[in-house]
Amino acid sequence: MIKRIHHVCIAVHNLDESLELYSSLFGVRPSKIKELPEQGVRAALMPLSQGGEIELIEPLNPESGTAKFLEKRGEGIHHFCLETDDTDQELCLLADKGVELIDKKARRGLAGLVGFLHPKSTKGALIEIAQEVPD
Amino acid sequence: MIKRIHHVCIAVHNLDESLELYSSLFGVRPSKIKELPEQGVRAALMPLSQGGEIELIEPLNPESGTAKFLEKRGEGIHHFCLETDDTDQELCLLADKGVELIDKKARRGLAGLVGFLHPKSTKGALIEIAQEVPD
Repeated sequence: MIKRIHHVCIAVHNLDESLELYSSLFGVRPSKIKELPEQGVRAALMPLSQGGEIELIEPLNPESGTAKFLEKRGEGIHHFCLETDDTDQELCLLADKGVELIDKKARRGLAGLVGFLHPKSTKGALIEIAQEVPD
Repeated sequence: MIKRIHHVCIAVHNLDESLELYSSLFGVRPSKIKELPEQGVRAALMPLSQGGEIELIEPLNPESGTAKFLEKRGEGIHHFCLETDDTDQELCLLADKGVELIDKKARRGLAGLVGFLHPKSTKGALIEIAQEVPD
């Protein structure tokens, strides 16, 4: 079952500079900062006091999907993430409803066990499904 | 003070068809559907059970900013919204920090008293600030 909006993710050129800006504007602080080489990004999550988090991602190399996104569109909102109790079950249910999956099985991401849906199945929005699990 | 992610908004060509899709995929139902002629959109908000909402917007006419967004980028994530206790105060604080405002004063929107920040001040992300008020 989909429970809540877990985070909104913004693709940026410079993670450290952007973290400083977002901290100063919205009073948020990163709870996690991590390199995710398999996703080609360095990423940070900043929880808001009453729900939801802002994620910032910076590409690790020019081949990263995020580098291509930045080249094509510039900095901006990249995806948003919906939290569930069970990512694998949710992906399975969504595939049964005809959604094209980018990830057929849950994998480790910054937000837990995650899987992405193809935007062509969701009116152009890149949506991540995430299940929080201990690090 | 910024409290939480209030909603994520997706611009679509056909609101009714998209509401049906999102309802079927994520088990959400619209709590509000409204024409906002001054913003040039018909919009719907769909709350998730444990926090955050998904908003869908459809342009009312070809001159609407949303129509231009769709023409340029196609359907997809349009903005996200951060909830505060006092939109006017928040806009004032953000302007003092050097943020360029699209709305200098709060105005009525679907999510309450709202104001938009210019994406050039927020790493390309279009961000709305909203204060919930009775309809």
